[in-house]
Amino acid sequence: MDFRHPEFDTITGQKPSEDCAVIGITGTVPVFSSLVLGLKSLQHRGQESAGISLYNGGKIKLIKGPGLVSEVFGPETELPEAFADSSVGIGHTRYSTKGSKSSQNAGPFALSGAAGYFSVSHNGEITNAEDLRRDLKRRGVAFVTNSDTEVLLAEIARDISQRGVEDGLRYAMSRLKGAYSLALLINERLFAVRDPHGFRPLVIGKTKESFMVASESCTFDVLGGELIRDVLPGEVIELTPRSYRSLFRITGSISHCMFEYVYFARPDSIIDSAEVFRTRIELGRILAREHPVDADVVIPVPDSGRAQSLGFSEESGIKYSEGLIKNRYSGRTFIMPTQEGRVNAIRLKLNPIKSAIEGKRVVLVDDSIVRGNTIKRIVSILRKQGAKEVHVRIGSPMIVAPCYYGVDMKTRKDFIARDRTAREICKEVGADSLEYLSIDGLIRGIGMPSERLCKACLTGVYPEPIPEMEKVVQRELETY
Amino acid sequence: MDFRHPEFDTITGQKPSEDCAVIGITGTVPVFSSLVLGLKSLQHRGQESAGISLYNGGKIKLIKGPGLVSEVFGPETELPEAFADSSVGIGHTRYSTKGSKSSQNAGPFALSGAAGYFSVSHNGEITNAEDLRRDLKRRGVAFVTNSDTEVLLAEIARDISQRGVEDGLRYAMSRLKGAYSLALLINERLFAVRDPHGFRPLVIGKTKESFMVASESCTFDVLGGELIRDVLPGEVIELTPRSYRSLFRITGSISHCMFEYVYFARPDSIIDSAEVFRTRIELGRILAREHPVDADVVIPVPDSGRAQSLGFSEESGIKYSEGLIKNRYSGRTFIMPTQEGRVNAIRLKLNPIKSAIEGKRVVLVDDSIVRGNTIKRIVSILRKQGAKEVHVRIGSPMIVAPCYYGVDMKTRKDFIARDRTAREICKEVGADSLEYLSIDGLIRGIGMPSERLCKACLTGVYPEPIPEMEKVVQRELETY
Amino acid sequence: MDFRHPEFDTITGQKPSEDCAVIGITGTVPVFSSLVLGLKSLQHRGQESAGISLYNGGKIKLIKGPGLVSEVFGPETELPEAFADSSVGIGHTRYSTKGSKSSQNAGPFALSGAAGYFSVSHNGEITNAEDLRRDLKRRGVAFVTNSDTEVLLAEIARDISQRGVEDGLRYAMSRLKGAYSLALLINERLFAVRDPHGFRPLVIGKTKESFMVASESCTFDVLGGELIRDVLPGEVIELTPRSYRSLFRITGSISHCMFEYVYFARPDSIIDSAEVFRTRIELGRILAREHPVDADVVIPVPDSGRAQSLGFSEESGIKYSEGLIKNRYSGRTFIMPTQEGRVNAIRLKLNPIKSAIEGKRVVLVDDSIVRGNTIKRIVSILRKQGAKEVHVRIGSPMIVAPCYYGVDMKTRKDFIARDRTAREICKEVGADSLEYLSIDGLIRGIGMPSERLCKACLTGVYPEPIPEMEKVVQRELETY
Amino acid sequence: MDFRHPEFDTITGQKPSEDCAVIGITGTVPVFSSLVLGLKSLQHRGQESAGISLYNGGKIKLIKGPGLVSEVFGPETELPEAFADSSVGIGHTRYSTKGSKSSQNAGPFALSGAAGYFSVSHNGEITNAEDLRRDLKRRGVAFVTNSDTEVLLAEIARDISQRGVEDGLRYAMSRLKGAYSLALLINERLFAVRDPHGFRPLVIGKTKESFMVASESCTFDVLGGELIRDVLPGEVIELTPRSYRSLFRITGSISHCMFEYVYFARPDSIIDSAEVFRTRIELGRILAREHPVDADVVIPVPDSGRAQSLGFSEESGIKYSEGLIKNRYSGRTFIMPTQEGRVNAIRLKLNPIKSAIEGKRVVLVDDSIVRGNTIKRIVSILRKQGAKEVHVRIGSPMIVAPCYYGVDMKTRKDFIARDRTAREICKEVGADSLEYLSIDGLIRGIGMPSERLCKACLTGVYPEPIPEMEKVVQRELETY
Repeated sequence: MDFRHPEFDTITGQKPSEDCAVIGITGTVPVFSSLVLGLKSLQHRGQESAGISLYNGGKIKLIKGPGLVSEVFGPETELPEAFADSSVGIGHTRYSTKGSKSSQNAGPFALSGAAGYFSVSHNGEITNAEDLRRDLKRRGVAFVTNSDTEVLLAEIARDISQRGVEDGLRYAMSRLKGAYSLALLINERLFAVRDPHGFRPLVIGKTKESFMVASESCTFDVLGGELIRDVLPGEVIELTPRSYRSLFRITGSISHCMFEYVYFARPDSIIDSAEVFRTRIELGRILAREHPVDADVVIPVPDSGRAQSLGFSEESGIKYSEGLIKNRYSGRTFIMPTQEGRVNAIRLKLNPIKSAIEGKRVVLVDDSIVRGNTIKRIVSILRKQGAKEVHVRIGSPMIVAPCYYGVDMKTRKDFIARDRTAREICKEVGADSLEYLSIDGLIRGIGMPSERLCKACLTGVYPEPIPEMEKVVQRELETY
Repeated sequence: MDFRHPEFDTITGQKPSEDCAVIGITGTVPVFSSLVLGLKSLQHRGQESAGISLYNGGKIKLIKGPGLVSEVFGPETELPEAFADSSVGIGHTRYSTKGSKSSQNAGPFALSGAAGYFSVSHNGEITNAEDLRRDLKRRGVAFVTNSDTEVLLAEIARDISQRGVEDGLRYAMSRLKGAYSLALLINERLFAVRDPHGFRPLVIGKTKESFMVASESCTFDVLGGELIRDVLPGEVIELTPRSYRSLFRITGSISHCMFEYVYFARPDSIIDSAEVFRTRIELGRILAREHPVDADVVIPVPDSGRAQSLGFSEESGIKYSEGLIKNRYSGRTFIMPTQEGRVNAIRLKLNPIKSAIEGKRVVLVDDSIVRGNTIKRIVSILRKQGAKEVHVRIGSPMIVAPCYYGVDMKTRKDFIARDRTAREICKEVGADSLEYLSIDGLIRGIGMPSERLCKACLTGVYPEPIPEMEKVVQRELETY
Repeated sequence: MDFRHPEFDTITGQKPSEDCAVIGITGTVPVFSSLVLGLKSLQHRGQESAGISLYNGGKIKLIKGPGLVSEVFGPETELPEAFADSSVGIGHTRYSTKGSKSSQNAGPFALSGAAGYFSVSHNGEITNAEDLRRDLKRRGVAFVTNSDTEVLLAEIARDISQRGVEDGLRYAMSRLKGAYSLALLINERLFAVRDPHGFRPLVIGKTKESFMVASESCTFDVLGGELIRDVLPGEVIELTPRSYRSLFRITGSISHCMFEYVYFARPDSIIDSAEVFRTRIELGRILAREHPVDADVVIPVPDSGRAQSLGFSEESGIKYSEGLIKNRYSGRTFIMPTQEGRVNAIRLKLNPIKSAIEGKRVVLVDDSIVRGNTIKRIVSILRKQGAKEVHVRIGSPMIVAPCYYGVDMKTRKDFIARDRTAREICKEVGADSLEYLSIDGLIRGIGMPSERLCKACLTGVYPEPIPEMEKVVQRELETY
Repeated sequence: MDFRHPEFDTITGQKPSEDCAVIGITGTVPVFSSLVLGLKSLQHRGQESAGISLYNGGKIKLIKGPGLVSEVFGPETELPEAFADSSVGIGHTRYSTKGSKSSQNAGPFALSGAAGYFSVSHNGEITNAEDLRRDLKRRGVAFVTNSDTEVLLAEIARDISQRGVEDGLRYAMSRLKGAYSLALLINERLFAVRDPHGFRPLVIGKTKESFMVASESCTFDVLGGELIRDVLPGEVIELTPRSYRSLFRITGSISHCMFEYVYFARPDSIIDSAEVFRTRIELGRILAREHPVDADVVIPVPDSGRAQSLGFSEESGIKYSEGLIKNRYSGRTFIMPTQEGRVNAIRLKLNPIKSAIEGKRVVLVDDSIVRGNTIKRIVSILRKQGAKEVHVRIGSPMIVAPCYYGVDMKTRKDFIARDRTAREICKEVGADSLEYLSIDGLIRGIGMPSERLCKACLTGVYPEPIPEMEKVVQRELETY
């Protein structure tokens, strides 16, 4: 399997979009086209694989495969007849975590058991998956992949078979640890399920002829519908073609992932009642207040730093400008014979605009830093282009600890901020100054009580114990 | 998914190679290359998909996909490291039964359960698969495909978890009905398992550095090894790198598939102690005695009728000649705008040699007739080429009933011999005479006691009740 | 052949990048990697095909094919040995004009004749190609494609064979009409050639180990080199690994394409001494002065309207904001069963950010309008998102006439501004106001004397007679 | 480009089908489907590329590409509209000579010149192509590939432009040396052209609604038509939808390639009035008389030795049997880690049938030996299978000299018979005896006067001087 989309940045080490996306629609009309369109609206959350499960004629049918939504469900895709007129189904796009490029791990997952047909789209990460897997095996369950989603689905299917849908889901949620926002199909019934911490987003919406669940509200815009509300942490909602119903809610401490606001989610989405774009503007404003600087121009790292840059510019009064041109066609780099070749490669991806940079004191704004390779190279090319000063401002705090809730940041040694101060990073990066938004600033910018945000990657303090901390790499049966 | 190999005959309605092939090797050296080579030697038994499971480092890894062995394991295939030095594994090639072109149904299957890792390659068909599936679901097992092999593996894995390997296999075999010749991997242990009827072939062999199980003995020739013996009906054998051991044998009435001798197996294979080529020669000889004819030349339908033709020629003293040229490059036919185009298409596949036909009284020999379309067209082109007389001789009896043991002949109305006499078929086909080998002749030719042969497709009498007679088309969860 | 890159917008009717790109490098080291990197930096000028010609060992070798540079020269591309160490070559990317998706029309073109080996990369369009083709045929030349570039190369090769390089090129340029910026390889010699009007850009640059010609200066940045100067209209320059030399210059009236500044060229390029980004900012400033409006926010149509928006915001003092999120993964749209589906499709490509739009008086800025479909849809979705007023401002004048100099705008009836006033267009588009930059404003913004700019598509007055006006669709031998 | 068809034998060194095939049809109905079907019937003459040129609407359109006919013209091929209803066209399949896997060298070739549109399909090899190329260059012609067919077409187009069709063709044929059987399209006119030596076959035929030219008569059978006659050496025939007309014939010494009878042509074809199958039977008979042997069984090397084996068996009275099973699925071999693996690989391709070999004195018959690797390996496996004696009989004389007329045998050192006697080869191969057919026997078998057969590869005496003897590898402009 080989992914060579222009979007995949293998040159500069830019953070690829992590995470996964889920969607589910139940309507009075066929839903397949809407599922495809909806998945495309969520493609930024995962480009590795795509899949759709539909219920029809007493069964669930599933098509999934590696690639973009437009490839898996391209004009040439031969669809089973049952797809054409099914009125309820779910979809998934996936970003793989390391080591498992397997198309067998693509979503959705499906199985048939004593209680009928089940299919699930999962965004998140089950932290006690290996414990559950062992336990389920002892109880006679067998597995065909190494995916935590297969464990989740096996647990749910088993519990529902033994206790019915509502009690079964309640029981399953008492056993599952970690992050899970689900679109769940049980025979012809569609459910939205969000873990009690509410790590990952999940919203419900509607059009004239359907009710829907999705990872982000932008999907509802694209489908000509409207956002109803967030699925609450710990809530299970059943959707029907003409309404929805909250089955129950398990309450507990809430831990929304702050990184959705900083980087993951689309700016036009509204998550847990906050519009992502407005939040990012605010983060930029607070950043400007926390770390002011005397400069001539604010320029963003495109595309991720734009909103924070606009906020920084507004608050500081320093003029905003585009200053770096992003080449969307870089693709995988042909082998460079010389080191010099490699150094130039960053300019293939991001090239500075002379008139915006030369002789200027530049504030360079990005949303976050993980490994730091890209920002270092950008600072270097800004200097070469004649920037008088380069001041780096980052619209989120330092990332110092791995995420176990669905973000592809597992290895501590990857983090440039691990065991370094901002001053040391500034030196490493070669900037005149480099400052991060404070954790307090982040919380104020998002506008939520601190205790409702997961800040584990910023503090190393996790909302709940991680049973498999540092064992994450361990793999089960690997099916390719 | 689209299969367009030159071998796939969509023009003339020639019988494609049905059935599946299994192989397993355990050695003192890495076995991957030998598994690939072995699968290629068995490719005639299934061209739709290919797969290999290998045990290494405490786990089983599996690669499978649609296409020929040379495509799934082509020069560009990226193999996991564990594949390179694994010394025990199994392989499978598959011919799909109708309606399930799904690559998810490709073999081998694998799962991990309480007793560890399991993988199986299966040739045959479980006749009570749906009963077992329902029963297993009631007991908490879930399924992800509609394959009877998944049911078989789930049953085996569950029974072994509860009863240990030997008792578990014995119990599983008491529950499984139908045809199953298996190469079975349980963690690092390799087993050969054949159902008590012995429907499909299964042989064990060895090289200097390995012991092997395979569907046919030709595999051992290709791998530079030798045939040890058949796995007996109902027998379970464990293979180790340096020896093999018969664990147990369940005895019962034996029902070897006669069609392996007539058509499926490679002529150079030795099955249940009889060499296939020699058997086919003998069938041709008996056919010549049962249905003599005064003629000038015996010509085979290439490639399937060659051995029987040679036998017919030897016995009758009528000269043998090639008379039809087979075009191996026909591929899928481009849409013919006119009916005339379609009629000519047979000559793209099979064109007569003028000097061998013109003015001659021809005996045309093939191994069998299923639908009769091809033979009808061949008779027609032989007449056009100037044959004075065309006498069709078929080296097996009339096929009148569906097979439920692994051969893709399910629909009664497809059989030209259903509700027709040989005389009526002769008229339908346009031959001067047309005769089939008798059932007695077949039995004598194979040289086995009649009661040891499955003749269900010739008589409609099945060796055991078929629980799902006529329900075969029913499908479960269909995963594409 | 099928192009399904995420960049290809088939939903909204956005203008795809037209035009072609040329590059040539001669160095003291192998140049292949640099040619690939350089082509990637120019990919915005053409995504349909890519190719590279290299001189080595007395011959020219050429690889070209359909697709992005990263596809034609991907990691798996098998290169002839001669490619690895060749130190002089040219490259091309192409955007097809209508009806000729043929990979045979991909560039560069190459031939061998009496004077040796020739290869050319061409940006532009020869307006008297059919006259020359007829004339050359009469003189014994034969053609294999319908490309005007083949005609150009045949003319050049013939003239050089008869008159030597310098006189031959001079003579060929006296016969060729229209637009041509060339990287030309004659055996091991590399030339930069620009037509006397200087329609399309062409620049020369250098690195420590090479001299280069390219369509835009951004290429030199990416290759770690620097811009030397423009190739002057009518000038022929020979490049050598360590220097360059102007062979001659044919003077005449200059007609730089104004659309390079408005839309085609990369913002970070410097063309005919003017930086594109700075020019676009200035166009936005003038637009704000010419057509002021009382509003709350300036938002660009991403990505094409950003620079002009910034200029408009700076001049007007109205706050700049991002307001539309561009989805880069839309791909070819799956068939929408309902008209409603089609209407929503624009929101898959461009979705408004609520907080930036709702209740606001919006100035929507784009660089130009051709057919007007996209701008109409954007105005509609801004209104639906709650914009109080929508004022469209376009950073270039109305396009009313076809281009015959290399831009894919041939059919008059496609232009929304054909036979319509700005007021009528405003009504058609549904905006509160809609204004274009004046031609005067455009000229001032670019900062060149009016007579040095080609404004044919704005006025219908062409710099020279078009021999084949309206016969453009006529096609020659079409080779696929 | 990668060819991995089962037919491509990279393991055993079997001779692949060399040569090319040509076809042309002019009819009262559309001809595209018939051209595709006809090309498939000739696929044995070349599997590397396929192409079709059709005249329609005043122009010629051409589609060609790498791969089998069924791939280039598969069900998904998008055809230009002009293809659907064109009633005259030509086709080509090609086997590449070494070093030029380029799809640019695929046929047919096409060009447009002063006299209109030309397209040609060429079987053969122009021996003075480089002289003509140089001469044409001097006269102003340019070339885009290194193909001798491009030279041939340029010469023809030029001569016809200057002298009209008939005189032009006559003049061109006086300049062209070597082998050329052509289907030639000049605007809407279709011609069959065969060089004066008549090296390669060329036949004309008809159906009810068309007249046709093809490399072999089997094509007419497949298209439901009939053979009219051979195109005579040096003859030019014009075909029209309802008749044909011999324009002229250049007489000279005739040199039909004997290898067509021995190996290339399909057995069911009739070439220069001799049926290939019958000729091969006769060659086998003569071989049996020339080199009798006391043995138990005659077995062919499948598929190439079958006809000669039948003749040998008939003449000698020794029983004929199949004895080697050919595996048609071997594909490219996966890398074998050990030498032992490589030795076994022959058995993947050809495995002996025990009962046909064991304890027997075997006569092994093949049509010819080039390098000798395969026959050596077959002798070895027959011995391992228990053959008491192995007597090799070859149905053609020793090949000792390169072919310059269209057969891919260029390098003398490849020939096992170069500087070796039959006795030495027998020892090398490990047989009990090994004998070749004599040259006299070959001539008698074919039944033509000796002076009418080209025996250059058997004698080293060429029918005409080879201007480029030993310079053949020299390459021109190589376009990939």
